[in-house]
Amino acid sequence: MTYCVGILLKTGLVMLSDSRTNAGVDNIASFRKMTVWEQPGERVIGLMSSGNLAISQAVVTYLEEGLGEGGDTILTVPSLFKAAQLVGQAVRAVYTEVGGTLEAKEPGAFNVSLLLGGQIKGRRCRLFQVYSAGNFIHASDRTPFFQIGEHKYGKPILDRALAYDTEPRTAAKLALLSMDSTLRSNLSVGLPLDLMIYRTDALKTELRRSIDEGDPYFEQIRQGWSSALRNAIKAMPDVPW
Amino acid sequence: MTYCVGILLKTGLVMLSDSRTNAGVDNIASFRKMTVWEQPGERVIGLMSSGNLAISQAVVTYLEEGLGEGGDTILTVPSLFKAAQLVGQAVRAVYTEVGGTLEAKEPGAFNVSLLLGGQIKGRRCRLFQVYSAGNFIHASDRTPFFQIGEHKYGKPILDRALAYDTEPRTAAKLALLSMDSTLRSNLSVGLPLDLMIYRTDALKTELRRSIDEGDPYFEQIRQGWSSALRNAIKAMPDVPW
Repeated sequence: MTYCVGILLKTGLVMLSDSRTNAGVDNIASFRKMTVWEQPGERVIGLMSSGNLAISQAVVTYLEEGLGEGGDTILTVPSLFKAAQLVGQAVRAVYTEVGGTLEAKEPGAFNVSLLLGGQIKGRRCRLFQVYSAGNFIHASDRTPFFQIGEHKYGKPILDRALAYDTEPRTAAKLALLSMDSTLRSNLSVGLPLDLMIYRTDALKTELRRSIDEGDPYFEQIRQGWSSALRNAIKAMPDVPW
Repeated sequence: MTYCVGILLKTGLVMLSDSRTNAGVDNIASFRKMTVWEQPGERVIGLMSSGNLAISQAVVTYLEEGLGEGGDTILTVPSLFKAAQLVGQAVRAVYTEVGGTLEAKEPGAFNVSLLLGGQIKGRRCRLFQVYSAGNFIHASDRTPFFQIGEHKYGKPILDRALAYDTEPRTAAKLALLSMDSTLRSNLSVGLPLDLMIYRTDALKTELRRSIDEGDPYFEQIRQGWSSALRNAIKAMPDVPW
């Protein structure tokens, strides 16, 4: 399984992914699920994936090498919208190659879900979710975050506390707390995490960091959150009737 | 959809269910998903169900009327274990009647999940989860709660804060907060709620209450929880790197 969350804010973008992949509970490995393409002053594009790892790795390769002689790559597309279209084309190219065989073995096996966010010079900062058919939607002020993979455990905290005008570093904290809830409840989501923070119009990442077991800040907010929750529960009156 | 949670504690039992049923998002209704059989001094048995409503209603009728001439009913079984066996038999009786037809129309359509808890005089207080095949498991001190239906949104708070030695009225508060997270994140779970609290060896319910929109206590803890969460988030340092 996987948990990735992408957040589009008034002043930036936050992306956070876990690293656990599994083919059955007895075959667990760690893969980076976030790829960032950064040309300072020119473009910052992040991609996170969940679903079939072979599909998402093939998509990344297509994005870097282009889909045909002289075609665009992720480093030459002129806007995030065009980047999302390129991701969609890459997904469909992989589907053409292996989709039939995968689906013949198991219906629904052609399964990939991607979050694409970033900004190219002179264009808007955007966040897209790309589906298995290569179609996509974009985040807006009313729905500022997208989740892929095991999304339910970590959704309540985002539903309650995240808004479009949240500061990027506060949103990153919320994303980490959302991830913490998911890590606790689903063994198939695991450390290390990859975090990226981008501030609109900076055209370079503000932060890229891997977070592993024992990271002092992550430990601090995990423990702080647990004890804050326990205190909040204690402070509320028990059922009175 | 549905969300029900049953909690077995050192000193009692808590059961909480929502009321929303739907056949598609355009066909929503409200049904009580909790049935309580109570003979003060003799037995208290609660049953909650999720899945196909026709199946769970048929199961309740079988429990009350018995499965055959002179057979046990939910009011005559001598222990909770026997009650769980009776529920399993009732599920299989319904499967014999309609399972083939349901599954022929749509694989997996014979779908029901039940939580059965309570105590009979002279026997232990117990909590069981009964599956679609009529097989069942029981809760213990290591896993003191079971959830059926839309369980993920409300699981993190129980994972963090609930233990076997939690007091029943505190556990009921946790169940209500777990329900609140689910109500906020999934439209197909809805009020009113049914809550039952039982204290071991009392042989009568301590509390049975329906909780609807505007209930002062539920509103108080919903708002208290939201503001406690927001304060806890504010109190924690933002991402420092």
